[in-house]
Amino acid sequence: MSNPLLKIAVDAMGGDFAPMNEIQGAIMASTLLSETTPIEIVFFGKEQEIRSALAKQTLPPSFRYSIIHTDEVITMEDDPTVVLRKKRNSSMIVGINAHKDAHVDAFISAGNTGAVMSAATVILGRINGVSRPTIGAFFPTQQKDPCLLLDVGANVDSKPKHLVEFCIMGSIYIQEILGIKNPKVGLLNIGEEESKGNEVAIETLALLKESPLNFIGNVEGRDIFQGTAHLIVTDGFTGNIVLKFAESFLGTLKVAFKQFAQKSIWNKLMVGLIVAPIMKKVLKSYDYQEYGGVPLLGVNGVVIIGHGKSTPLAIQNMILRAVESKQKNINDSIRTSIQEYNSSIPTPVS
Amino acid sequence: MSNPLLKIAVDAMGGDFAPMNEIQGAIMASTLLSETTPIEIVFFGKEQEIRSALAKQTLPPSFRYSIIHTDEVITMEDDPTVVLRKKRNSSMIVGINAHKDAHVDAFISAGNTGAVMSAATVILGRINGVSRPTIGAFFPTQQKDPCLLLDVGANVDSKPKHLVEFCIMGSIYIQEILGIKNPKVGLLNIGEEESKGNEVAIETLALLKESPLNFIGNVEGRDIFQGTAHLIVTDGFTGNIVLKFAESFLGTLKVAFKQFAQKSIWNKLMVGLIVAPIMKKVLKSYDYQEYGGVPLLGVNGVVIIGHGKSTPLAIQNMILRAVESKQKNINDSIRTSIQEYNSSIPTPVS
Repeated sequence: MSNPLLKIAVDAMGGDFAPMNEIQGAIMASTLLSETTPIEIVFFGKEQEIRSALAKQTLPPSFRYSIIHTDEVITMEDDPTVVLRKKRNSSMIVGINAHKDAHVDAFISAGNTGAVMSAATVILGRINGVSRPTIGAFFPTQQKDPCLLLDVGANVDSKPKHLVEFCIMGSIYIQEILGIKNPKVGLLNIGEEESKGNEVAIETLALLKESPLNFIGNVEGRDIFQGTAHLIVTDGFTGNIVLKFAESFLGTLKVAFKQFAQKSIWNKLMVGLIVAPIMKKVLKSYDYQEYGGVPLLGVNGVVIIGHGKSTPLAIQNMILRAVESKQKNINDSIRTSIQEYNSSIPTPVS
Repeated sequence: MSNPLLKIAVDAMGGDFAPMNEIQGAIMASTLLSETTPIEIVFFGKEQEIRSALAKQTLPPSFRYSIIHTDEVITMEDDPTVVLRKKRNSSMIVGINAHKDAHVDAFISAGNTGAVMSAATVILGRINGVSRPTIGAFFPTQQKDPCLLLDVGANVDSKPKHLVEFCIMGSIYIQEILGIKNPKVGLLNIGEEESKGNEVAIETLALLKESPLNFIGNVEGRDIFQGTAHLIVTDGFTGNIVLKFAESFLGTLKVAFKQFAQKSIWNKLMVGLIVAPIMKKVLKSYDYQEYGGVPLLGVNGVVIIGHGKSTPLAIQNMILRAVESKQKNINDSIRTSIQEYNSSIPTPVS
């Protein structure tokens, strides 16, 4: 089967280890896809830095790439709301503009998440019918499938209608990319009973019950890791706090074991030789850096955002997800489903 | 030093292991306090059950107790809003009423948290000037002191003024009970910058900056375990979700190690003989069951609420905390501080 060539824009100035991890991940993705889908990586960033990093790699013959030079770099400290105005010639803004102008089929970045979200939303625009784009995070679970938590910071003060839209978009993504039919959707709340929660939660529950989604009702904080649902929806305020809290867990464990190891030579040996290697294996799926980024759902384009500390493997997976999202026309499905949903509810609020 | 006798009401039908854990914890607390503070434990619950559990224990001579028989039992499934009307003769309601009538100096329960909160608030009433009582949870941190997260479920849809009151009450508790002078207070938010967060967070930040508290600004999800602040405040909606999510960490870790152990005999041996015992030691402070309950702050009385799975040690600590709260007149300090605060702000909103 031969697919048409896809061009993937890679923000080569994005992550903490850019451009090296971006380049290595791009080579890995190209190699993996070489038999089925020819891709061209378009690196956006400082040409000289990119070229000297490329020179350190053995480039396989199948690796096709080009470089668009950009002068400016958006850092993690940059205010997302001003980059579009103040750093027009950055790898991120030029890359997203190239996607808007259809020079590339997708854009991936491990850079400043807020900046990608706000620039992509403004430049690419929202899919018809979508009130607000959303970004989620995958959590490992006790079951075989991960759980997608939406929203994790794109939208604070979300309205019930927005939360339902997040669920529609997330369900399509999980169905198409993870291959889970009719994914289970839960509403994050402080109890299972229908009367529980704040006003937004209570109103959202009512809307979700009437929606065509596979809604399983309210779920609680513990249900994220338990894998009760494939998709759990909440406001970006709570979602962001839960995500950052979860991300601190592994580091906290490491500190606790380190303190224990320092108490005696015996402790140090046991932790170093036995506990640490086993922990590393067991907790691999809890290392959020290994997850290959998440989509910005709801914009007119394919945008995958990764953690600043993204490894080459994470970058590879971001590119694979971008290719799949494009091939499966996720955005067409989102447009259709959102419009069907909007026409099914009596009084749309946005 | 001899203190006056204190009577502590213990809900003997409360926890999952009642009345046994309650009795063992009460004996432990009495023994510990016997030299400094004479206490009498007043057990509320089914007399026969309590007597037969007591018969299984060796009662030290210093152990002073009495039993108030009550017929009804409030279960974890009971709706907190109706127990006061429907289960008037339960250990919980009769115990709290005894506290209101000054027959006992404090009330502790490892029963249905929502029921204790709502019954205690209605029966005991709020401290003058307090808009809403609050309940928190202690989190272990990478530092030496734990972090108190307030509110964890008593109040969803909290207003900025309420959050400030929670901080005032929590700071007093931490100062008096943990002995931390001028505890650091953080506002849970999605970023450190002052412009971050939802409307409630932004307004609360402004109020906290003007307050007499040792306010360190916005903190993020990761700051809970990092121990950036002694007290972190948030709405009960987000706080409850974070608490239940945190409580699921240990169980999730156990499942992951179990799955690993089942893969080979070697794995099983390593996990069973070395990893599990070390994990148990290292993660002791992460076992929420070991924390000895939390106070219901803001009611006219001393009420300590414990986890349903409270161990005898947890019950002992709940009793110790109740005694200390009473001896240090926490509520007088709260009354004074809240009234000072209220008179310092131009337009009180409640």
